[in-house]
Amino acid sequence: MDIVDLNSDMGEGFGPYKMGDDDAMLDIVTSANIACGFHAGDPDIMHRTVTGALQRGVDVGAHPGFNDVWGFGRRTIVGDSLKTIENLIAYQIGALQAIAHAAGHKVTHFKTHGALGNLMFKDADISDAIARAVKAVDRDLLYVIPPNTEGEKSGERAGLHVLREVFADRAYTDEGHLVSRRLEGAVIHDKQEAAARVLRMVEDRCITALSGKRLPVAIDSICVHGDTAGSVAMALEVKNTLVAAGVMLQPLAATHRV
Amino acid sequence: MDIVDLNSDMGEGFGPYKMGDDDAMLDIVTSANIACGFHAGDPDIMHRTVTGALQRGVDVGAHPGFNDVWGFGRRTIVGDSLKTIENLIAYQIGALQAIAHAAGHKVTHFKTHGALGNLMFKDADISDAIARAVKAVDRDLLYVIPPNTEGEKSGERAGLHVLREVFADRAYTDEGHLVSRRLEGAVIHDKQEAAARVLRMVEDRCITALSGKRLPVAIDSICVHGDTAGSVAMALEVKNTLVAAGVMLQPLAATHRV
Amino acid sequence: MDIVDLNSDMGEGFGPYKMGDDDAMLDIVTSANIACGFHAGDPDIMHRTVTGALQRGVDVGAHPGFNDVWGFGRRTIVGDSLKTIENLIAYQIGALQAIAHAAGHKVTHFKTHGALGNLMFKDADISDAIARAVKAVDRDLLYVIPPNTEGEKSGERAGLHVLREVFADRAYTDEGHLVSRRLEGAVIHDKQEAAARVLRMVEDRCITALSGKRLPVAIDSICVHGDTAGSVAMALEVKNTLVAAGVMLQPLAATHRV
Amino acid sequence: MDIVDLNSDMGEGFGPYKMGDDDAMLDIVTSANIACGFHAGDPDIMHRTVTGALQRGVDVGAHPGFNDVWGFGRRTIVGDSLKTIENLIAYQIGALQAIAHAAGHKVTHFKTHGALGNLMFKDADISDAIARAVKAVDRDLLYVIPPNTEGEKSGERAGLHVLREVFADRAYTDEGHLVSRRLEGAVIHDKQEAAARVLRMVEDRCITALSGKRLPVAIDSICVHGDTAGSVAMALEVKNTLVAAGVMLQPLAATHRV
Repeated sequence: MDIVDLNSDMGEGFGPYKMGDDDAMLDIVTSANIACGFHAGDPDIMHRTVTGALQRGVDVGAHPGFNDVWGFGRRTIVGDSLKTIENLIAYQIGALQAIAHAAGHKVTHFKTHGALGNLMFKDADISDAIARAVKAVDRDLLYVIPPNTEGEKSGERAGLHVLREVFADRAYTDEGHLVSRRLEGAVIHDKQEAAARVLRMVEDRCITALSGKRLPVAIDSICVHGDTAGSVAMALEVKNTLVAAGVMLQPLAATHRV
Repeated sequence: MDIVDLNSDMGEGFGPYKMGDDDAMLDIVTSANIACGFHAGDPDIMHRTVTGALQRGVDVGAHPGFNDVWGFGRRTIVGDSLKTIENLIAYQIGALQAIAHAAGHKVTHFKTHGALGNLMFKDADISDAIARAVKAVDRDLLYVIPPNTEGEKSGERAGLHVLREVFADRAYTDEGHLVSRRLEGAVIHDKQEAAARVLRMVEDRCITALSGKRLPVAIDSICVHGDTAGSVAMALEVKNTLVAAGVMLQPLAATHRV
Repeated sequence: MDIVDLNSDMGEGFGPYKMGDDDAMLDIVTSANIACGFHAGDPDIMHRTVTGALQRGVDVGAHPGFNDVWGFGRRTIVGDSLKTIENLIAYQIGALQAIAHAAGHKVTHFKTHGALGNLMFKDADISDAIARAVKAVDRDLLYVIPPNTEGEKSGERAGLHVLREVFADRAYTDEGHLVSRRLEGAVIHDKQEAAARVLRMVEDRCITALSGKRLPVAIDSICVHGDTAGSVAMALEVKNTLVAAGVMLQPLAATHRV
Repeated sequence: MDIVDLNSDMGEGFGPYKMGDDDAMLDIVTSANIACGFHAGDPDIMHRTVTGALQRGVDVGAHPGFNDVWGFGRRTIVGDSLKTIENLIAYQIGALQAIAHAAGHKVTHFKTHGALGNLMFKDADISDAIARAVKAVDRDLLYVIPPNTEGEKSGERAGLHVLREVFADRAYTDEGHLVSRRLEGAVIHDKQEAAARVLRMVEDRCITALSGKRLPVAIDSICVHGDTAGSVAMALEVKNTLVAAGVMLQPLAATHRV
């Protein structure tokens, strides 16, 4: 039987501000990637999100980004040394670990956010710095990364437990990269189409590119979004479609940890 | 033989900005209270300070404050719930724990900064919230607090390992509180006077109030400052005076941990 | 004929975050109090809000608060000098003036936000500092303030053009202060009740306290909220009720400037 | 007689932190470029710097940067729209205008800081956005820019009053650009060499490149730094050398405004 994890970014509010319907998403996913305060997520929101995940048996992971609330971590900040990248990653993981521990939960995975995550597609040096930081803080953290990226290679080089995710609503190039959002067909808006495609990728153990080309990959997790009403419905459709087809949804740590 | 720890706040710069001569102070003290990013101390500075401490055998502790770089954590922020106080304490301890762990060091004590620390003199609810957070994150953290305060009682109520500090350069009231800085004689500026007074307090196991009244207290640590050239000289004088009198200077964790 | 202004706080989002339905509210009110970046409102949001106001003939005012996005300016920051208060007020007014000027609009009024505004009820020193800052930056700014407060007196002492506002949904004490939100009946939730009460206050030129006591006051503006769907409906009800009764709704600057 | 302005960045502290010896520099220069709060400079520091400039007859200019205290505005933030750039420029100019006006001074020039300033060397779109913002806020602001840059062209296209500055301690390429700091000879450390070179450039109305090539340019202002003891001494040497040679030092607005 196929087993897969369903992950989503959460706790992305700040102070009085909300982003996405975390309660709805926590009822759907098996893993929550939790913002750690630099691009979103203050300590209160982190605590509430961790607690909500714990109550539902949802695993939690650190989801660090650049230090940029205004830009929501989507702007690339150029000029940090690799050591700075390491330090800001370590800082954010640790902050969430303590919040989780105090709430009786445990951080078991890691995934970068926004512009910092995008740098891991092609930048080997920054990816290595990030992998070094993960390893230095907790070498048991499951390292979630899109396949066919520098970030994947860095995780392997560092000897981390690398797990691969695909995006439910994004089209892929023949190289297994994401099709630029600026291009036609880059984002899949129809929830049934997205769900059917996810099921096919999981069952085939392949990413299917826009061209139809099939790229073999072990798919450990599916990333779904929760920002809008439509995206919650899509996440639910993906979940229901997988379950109906006999795919088992299970948190990463349940499958991949000893 | 008397044994005492010498602690100082460090890593209080931010980005391009410096505060105090950390290198000089790390050569003097046995424990460093390290700013955790909310009122001072970015991840890089935290890393550098932890590394400098490790190299010199200096212990490190979390030194969290209000989220207020502009005010350096010296402004009281009124309106947070007790839960928020817990969360911001947990967040900051965890951030430093990860930075320290990644650098091969370990956070072994805890001490609040500035306005947040001042609230622990008289506010039992906030003190309890802070003690709860420390306990929830790491109940083995040595909890450093001025004696005769609500913070001391909260630490005891929470079952924490409470250690008591006195200030090298501050006068005390008959209740064992700090004399307000606005009053004559509140701050001791002469380094020899400060050092002699510290030695007397350690040997007598008493705080001597301005009036001459003696308040028995187990003194585990002496707090010295490092912001100015004068304060570095005073810290050195305190150290040399204690050592010359046969007092052993040792990090808290060396003395108080099993 | 009675003339009154209808004001609401706007532009209170930050980065990717929204707060309230500004478009709906801009169609209802005659004046927008615009967050200036310290507690909410980044330069982009300020620009968009000013532009939206300009397009609808809505006047704009500076709505500065404490420097606290996390707390949305609702936490009191204690420890600033009066000079600091003056400077943070001047800074924020100026920032909005430039954004407005660049967009072809003009800042014509001033009203403090949140915890900083609450301090103006009873703190004469802080109120005087705020009034001094307004006067120093632009003595022609219309100074909007709840009557029977220290802030009102400070505005008068400074020789500012003081205009008085009442809240559509808040009950008043016999002293003309707001009934604490913790007390029963402090907030009026029924939109028709709120609208009827506002109309009565405008026509009577009196605030009616919870006890029934009537406090004479020139009411220049009505403050309505726009945070929730319910509050938009209430704002519309207040507007429609006033218009139906023949009260003229007009921006402050149209009525009070030469 | 040759007339030139001597400008320096100032007010670059934040909260408790200092950067450079502003008092010493204010005694030397004729124009102060004042940080506006985004990368450095809180409202208090802005006020103090403006006041110090006023007392000494030093002109003040807005010196806006990216919103990045941690990185001191030296990190490039990639991903802002051109409209965002316009808005953050307008915001910061306005903030300083109000602080200056309240203190009895007036902002008369404009110069970008750090990474934002560096983008003006080669990025025409961003330069145009910045020039648009300056024009929209105050078309009379003197626009200070290194010659031979996109920023210079943008200022001219926008019809601004463009003034050209050279750096006292930086070597130039044959194109009139700054030699990269990574290359040998990029920075001039000897104060007498720097001063002699500045005098030659002013008298010759030419930038002399590293190769000896001479690039004709109207030099309106000399930029000197004040971060270190050495740089204050260099600034003073530049001033004394110019004065001794009969060059008149005068604020930009005195020379270039009607």
